[in-house]
Amino acid sequence: MIDFRTSPEAWRHWRLSVDGPVARLTMDVAEDGGLATGYELKLNTYDLGVDIELADAVQRLRFEHPQVKAVVLESGKDRVFSAGANIRMLAGSDHAHKVNFCKFTNETRNGIEQSSAQSGQRYICEIAGPAAGGGYELALACDEIVMADDGNTSVALPEVPLLAVLPGTGGLTRLVDKRRVRRDRADVFCTLEEGVRGKRAVDWRLVDVVAPKSKLEEATAARIAEAVASSDRPDAAEGVALTPLARRESADGLSYEYLDVRLDAEARTAEFLVKGPAEGPPADATAMRDLGVAFWPLALARELDDAILHLRLNAPEVGLWILRSAGDGALVTAHDEFLAANAGHWLAREITLFWGRVLKRLDVSARSLFALVEPGSCFAGTLLELVLASDRGYMLDGAFEGDNRPPATLRATAANFGRYPGVNGLSRLATRFLDDDAAIAGIEAAREQELEGAEAEALGLVTFAPDDIDWEDEVRIAIEERAAFSPDALTGMEASLRFPGPETMESKIFARLSAWQNWIFQRPNAVGEAGALSRYGSGQRAGYDMKRT
Amino acid sequence: MIDFRTSPEAWRHWRLSVDGPVARLTMDVAEDGGLATGYELKLNTYDLGVDIELADAVQRLRFEHPQVKAVVLESGKDRVFSAGANIRMLAGSDHAHKVNFCKFTNETRNGIEQSSAQSGQRYICEIAGPAAGGGYELALACDEIVMADDGNTSVALPEVPLLAVLPGTGGLTRLVDKRRVRRDRADVFCTLEEGVRGKRAVDWRLVDVVAPKSKLEEATAARIAEAVASSDRPDAAEGVALTPLARRESADGLSYEYLDVRLDAEARTAEFLVKGPAEGPPADATAMRDLGVAFWPLALARELDDAILHLRLNAPEVGLWILRSAGDGALVTAHDEFLAANAGHWLAREITLFWGRVLKRLDVSARSLFALVEPGSCFAGTLLELVLASDRGYMLDGAFEGDNRPPATLRATAANFGRYPGVNGLSRLATRFLDDDAAIAGIEAAREQELEGAEAEALGLVTFAPDDIDWEDEVRIAIEERAAFSPDALTGMEASLRFPGPETMESKIFARLSAWQNWIFQRPNAVGEAGALSRYGSGQRAGYDMKRT
Repeated sequence: MIDFRTSPEAWRHWRLSVDGPVARLTMDVAEDGGLATGYELKLNTYDLGVDIELADAVQRLRFEHPQVKAVVLESGKDRVFSAGANIRMLAGSDHAHKVNFCKFTNETRNGIEQSSAQSGQRYICEIAGPAAGGGYELALACDEIVMADDGNTSVALPEVPLLAVLPGTGGLTRLVDKRRVRRDRADVFCTLEEGVRGKRAVDWRLVDVVAPKSKLEEATAARIAEAVASSDRPDAAEGVALTPLARRESADGLSYEYLDVRLDAEARTAEFLVKGPAEGPPADATAMRDLGVAFWPLALARELDDAILHLRLNAPEVGLWILRSAGDGALVTAHDEFLAANAGHWLAREITLFWGRVLKRLDVSARSLFALVEPGSCFAGTLLELVLASDRGYMLDGAFEGDNRPPATLRATAANFGRYPGVNGLSRLATRFLDDDAAIAGIEAAREQELEGAEAEALGLVTFAPDDIDWEDEVRIAIEERAAFSPDALTGMEASLRFPGPETMESKIFARLSAWQNWIFQRPNAVGEAGALSRYGSGQRAGYDMKRT
Repeated sequence: MIDFRTSPEAWRHWRLSVDGPVARLTMDVAEDGGLATGYELKLNTYDLGVDIELADAVQRLRFEHPQVKAVVLESGKDRVFSAGANIRMLAGSDHAHKVNFCKFTNETRNGIEQSSAQSGQRYICEIAGPAAGGGYELALACDEIVMADDGNTSVALPEVPLLAVLPGTGGLTRLVDKRRVRRDRADVFCTLEEGVRGKRAVDWRLVDVVAPKSKLEEATAARIAEAVASSDRPDAAEGVALTPLARRESADGLSYEYLDVRLDAEARTAEFLVKGPAEGPPADATAMRDLGVAFWPLALARELDDAILHLRLNAPEVGLWILRSAGDGALVTAHDEFLAANAGHWLAREITLFWGRVLKRLDVSARSLFALVEPGSCFAGTLLELVLASDRGYMLDGAFEGDNRPPATLRATAANFGRYPGVNGLSRLATRFLDDDAAIAGIEAAREQELEGAEAEALGLVTFAPDDIDWEDEVRIAIEERAAFSPDALTGMEASLRFPGPETMESKIFARLSAWQNWIFQRPNAVGEAGALSRYGSGQRAGYDMKRT
């Protein structure tokens, strides 16, 4: 079982030091610290375990270090920046692990970019020694790349010539879409095993600046100063300690404070029961900070995030996630309003951005998502996003016979109109209706109202709203059918239907680059007996079937 | 060998009848008319051969029938519209054929949409009887879908539940991006083997209108009238007969009037030598029409189109296409200017649109493209697009020793600034430079100038401009290296680097949906012994590995 929970005391591969507004995040991978056996993490290569620590560091920088405005990402090794993902690890992993590994590492890098773009915490990468493959892709996720101008330092994406696969963490997309490297130069660069260094790397926009090693620190310092000056993070503020997340595991699931996940191995389903807050929001931002990880929105976001990652990696056969909720929608809305009212406070911003990332994690999970809206649920505002993220929403119209609770309702609020953009840059409502302005206007008009099943269906917020008589059969059959389809076909279908409308670098990376990578990861030219990934390091040349498809 | 050349006399699967401004294109597939053996084309199912005829019909409607303003696409079978791509054909085809088949059928459907959007020739699909899978996808490529409201007629995309693959001709993308079917409804629709009919099909935006069979003709007629009224095609004009394309084949290549393709099986390269016009453009549009298929731009476009398709299907191991040209750039420019001056003439418009399609065919070909710009070449305007479409451009700086011809030059003209948008909707120049306005301005300033190697390189129009001393080695090594890389990795890399910037339905279909389809097409759940595609029609249920990736 892979556990995504970690903390600095447990890290083996990273060091974080903070000096006022500047943090240094130092990659110093322990060769014997691999998550699995059979490979050594030489030359600052990484596996999922290294990246779990990186994700933890990025998260802690946001929450535990509100005053940090610039993060310098650097290598702790003398002669190398990073040689990227560990090849023997990749060669020894099954297809699903490779794909999941790439997805998580992509999310971490997108998170770094979110820190830079929205959180006032800019990343500057300082490269001394070769940065190859995933090593260079890590640099590409930073705002600025400062590189030593010496004979030993270069950037490279040698995947195509060396391994017959693609760079797996967004490198191709970031080259042309983020750094605007001219496509013909990108083509040359991606076929050069030895990479590019010095002036050409700047001319081709592969890095921002090169400097002799003696002046490297100075070049970085100038960029740190700019980042610090332009940040809107507080000069002095007390962070929130991300204390260990309590999780109870049992044979049939996981349980956190505000989330239960019930697994049904035979049905291949996981039922998420999300619980609303027990009480209203705190009095003010100071009280929110004092609550820390106990503050409901932060607590639930952490729990959901952990559960999603856990299920992705540890329950690959559970293909359908069923999203339910229980609680008081008015209290959910009160928390949403509290966060909106305190949007200028660093912690409120971080929590809102974190929810955005958690919801996107759901969007790009290769699992079917059904939401069930029943009496007693609290799908309002932020929690309504769970319904909107789902492939389908089923909502009971009215109440169950013999159940004297009020009918099921849901509620659209300000939180649904752009607070949590999806990977395509649009709100989930906008993605749902695209050019259908009338539909959006209808929901706008019903904002803050408690909508029952038939209304919610008429407004397009749920897919079906069966009544008590039909509910059980309709939901049961939909679940059974879904669980019986080919998982691959569902993954491709969902990736194609979930992201209509415009594209962003993020949607390209997840929905396009990933698909090519998935494809190539199972071609014999990469993973067959004579494939480049299999033969890497054996001294034998790869043998290719030269047919182009 | 698959031949893409055909003509109505040879068609076995389609009928075309023209009555003034209205054409009827009737699909009536001959069961015994498959391109290969081992399957029967029952229920209006299709294989590549059926689609080659469709592409021919669409092309002839543009060129031979300038007065046709509306095309009704219908079935010639009593009880079925079309059951889509033939499953036994798919199950019996190798991976490369499946992928190439989908690519060509996608291009044909995109071409139908170009007819509607830019050529004043709108397509109306009339569905009576089931339209499933590729059958419905054909309808999705039309402007309007009119459907019979009876117990036998439905639309469906049953690929996921029935075959464990994705709809292969853009169906998923067109559902949500073109027809704006709500994503949760699209999800439901794509899992319903039996599809959707009647009012729900209209409510869900799957079709535009339903009518009882007795009123179907009337419903179609109303749409025909609208299409005819809104078209800017001429009321009366003489078309250009697309006479058979002459092609000489030999052991080492193909030869047309304005194009030679020399194959080197050992080096795995194909060298395209494109020849400029021998003389200036005709006096006026009437003279152009009289020239017909002998008019240089039309002749060359037909030849290039045929060569690209031929090599894709018949020379799969030839992974690198080298683009060269010979002729007088001034005459190329004169033809470009003639077409621009006559842009209001239907034939000039058709030729320009055709060039746009041919260039896009190149963009989406799964082959590496290198352009070589040497003395005697004529890469100006439209032909410069070949350089801009290439993954790399190599241009000689100066002349070869002992060659007394003038140095190599190339020339950017008005034709390069938006006349031929790529699949991402941008000109190839805009794609090349994206936000680099200074670079675009530099080329704008150098418009119409004959640029030598060093200048062209400085402006960013070519990748490298070696001089006589370095040329041979540099080009030879680049070609040899390219031909040695894994073809799959190159395909994925090129698909990721060629389409930076914005996305369109077309780029999504080619660069994203295709990738998912490619992936799924080789997953054991589809094509393994127990896979759904393999077991289809056997009476045995498919067996799936339920791991989600």
